[in-house]
Amino acid sequence: MTTIKDIGEQGLLAKLQSFCPAEIIGDDAAVLVTAPGKSLVVTTDVLVDGVHFSDATTSPEDAGWRAAAANLSDLAAMGACPLGITVGLGLPGDLKVSWVERLYQGMTECLQKYNTPIVGGDVVRSPTTTISITAFGQVDPQRIIRRAAAKVGDAIVVTGVHGASHAGLQLLLHPQLGQNLTTEQKNTFIKAHQRPQPRLDVLPILWDIVNHTPSTVAGMDSSDGLADAVLQICRVSGVGAVLESHQIPFPTTLEHWLKPEQAIEYALYGGEDFELVLCLPQEQAKTLVKQLSQGAAIIGNITSGSKVLLHDEQQKIPDQVLSLSQGFQHFGQ
Amino acid sequence: MTTIKDIGEQGLLAKLQSFCPAEIIGDDAAVLVTAPGKSLVVTTDVLVDGVHFSDATTSPEDAGWRAAAANLSDLAAMGACPLGITVGLGLPGDLKVSWVERLYQGMTECLQKYNTPIVGGDVVRSPTTTISITAFGQVDPQRIIRRAAAKVGDAIVVTGVHGASHAGLQLLLHPQLGQNLTTEQKNTFIKAHQRPQPRLDVLPILWDIVNHTPSTVAGMDSSDGLADAVLQICRVSGVGAVLESHQIPFPTTLEHWLKPEQAIEYALYGGEDFELVLCLPQEQAKTLVKQLSQGAAIIGNITSGSKVLLHDEQQKIPDQVLSLSQGFQHFGQ
Repeated sequence: MTTIKDIGEQGLLAKLQSFCPAEIIGDDAAVLVTAPGKSLVVTTDVLVDGVHFSDATTSPEDAGWRAAAANLSDLAAMGACPLGITVGLGLPGDLKVSWVERLYQGMTECLQKYNTPIVGGDVVRSPTTTISITAFGQVDPQRIIRRAAAKVGDAIVVTGVHGASHAGLQLLLHPQLGQNLTTEQKNTFIKAHQRPQPRLDVLPILWDIVNHTPSTVAGMDSSDGLADAVLQICRVSGVGAVLESHQIPFPTTLEHWLKPEQAIEYALYGGEDFELVLCLPQEQAKTLVKQLSQGAAIIGNITSGSKVLLHDEQQKIPDQVLSLSQGFQHFGQ
Repeated sequence: MTTIKDIGEQGLLAKLQSFCPAEIIGDDAAVLVTAPGKSLVVTTDVLVDGVHFSDATTSPEDAGWRAAAANLSDLAAMGACPLGITVGLGLPGDLKVSWVERLYQGMTECLQKYNTPIVGGDVVRSPTTTISITAFGQVDPQRIIRRAAAKVGDAIVVTGVHGASHAGLQLLLHPQLGQNLTTEQKNTFIKAHQRPQPRLDVLPILWDIVNHTPSTVAGMDSSDGLADAVLQICRVSGVGAVLESHQIPFPTTLEHWLKPEQAIEYALYGGEDFELVLCLPQEQAKTLVKQLSQGAAIIGNITSGSKVLLHDEQQKIPDQVLSLSQGFQHFGQ
């Protein structure tokens, strides 16, 4: 008798994908053509108490903000503008009503910033507090950002610093850490974890730059880690990459606290920074980085082959081949 | 400290609705305008192990079918044609992989019948098996079926018999029941419970009939019971109704087993028959009932006032005023 633990999340997803149309698998969200020139983009997240959020590290407001932000980020990663979200809740009968109201407060604070309404939902009884969000957005079919569209020679752009969210989580879990940091520096990391910003603001800037050459942008968000994003893009695009470790932007204050190789590890594997990782022609990439706010950078290039190599110009860290197995696995031992 | 049990599902929903735009509350699904002449219809259901399905009464295939059918029925209730669904799963690590595959098998069997793809989803670890489905459909804005559109003088049409699903559930829970029924009769009830048919087939017939007078149809589905549907429609339309109990169609074999007043109770309050309850002008209602398959009937009329009266022409049952509090409450004592 095979259990889910035996085959892991990836194994289970592989089995379930046989039930879905092949053309809609493998991006941050599904795309459905609804009218000429209009595509509907749909994405779903399920969040479970004790697995994805916990009263120990996350207030209900922050759990709500993060849930909304994660879904809006998936839309941004597809190039889509949000239309609305639905919220399905499974709630124990003895949960405080104020907890649910505070969850919604956090969700709507994030959603209002991006003019996105909650358009529906369901509330049911469950022994386990569960939040299921489905977000949908709209995109011009020519402007869909797909993971599989990276081309040899493309520059790899990140829209902001990485590692801050993981640093904030570590500070929440282990308050004794970060002795060299000021309270303000600590709070900046914690806020990066509790109130991530989906990068929908990048889209109009991006479209201005690539206006006359549509369908040239590949990408996804870095919610599961920067390394994971680059590896996923390369795998489905059938390409490799070289990342220059000294170009990977992390908050400078991380260096007050961590060794350089640790800071890079936070940036590559920490996850939940909700930036965009975009692959596009070099000149457009340079223009984009210039126009985005602080932290955006070209971190490497798409190469032929299939390996993703992390290269350190200063040889502080030995060159290494990155692999998906170093990434986050939902169903661990 | 107020808990969810204290205020019940309706109390909690009332609080949460303050976070949603007012115009999209109160139907089977939310409606969003996406392009001229096109509206997107969205509906979400969360199903929890032990609350909405259980291995004792429901195979994983049937749980999957029922989950898909319930969401397609919500689209049908809005007049919308399905575009796709997303499936979010919360699963314990020790759940059998075959259980999940069988769930998907049942879901896709139902979906394929209505040409609806699974377009995405999420799989996460959870102590409680949870299925969260969001379904999307499209509708011409002039053809949206809303609960609030019932008008005095409208006929109330049901698209099929009621009570069969509840009878099937009772037979599954208490196999000693229904001694007067043949095995085939029992299986027909059980199948009505396990494999309900969303009435998307009604829509093209309905639009043919009301073609030249759009926006004249009010309605919803009877998933929470026929009485609940009529009461909800009347409440939000600001009207009353008279239902003729001898016109309410229930399976004739129910009478081999139950007293007439029990059979009516099953039909009114049993729920999960997933028929449509439609309010439309008398002549159109008559044509619709004629064109639909066996079981469709005009069961009463919309009246002024606010009371929903159940009237028995033969006076076998005394006249009674129906109320929502007799309906199903998710968070009970």
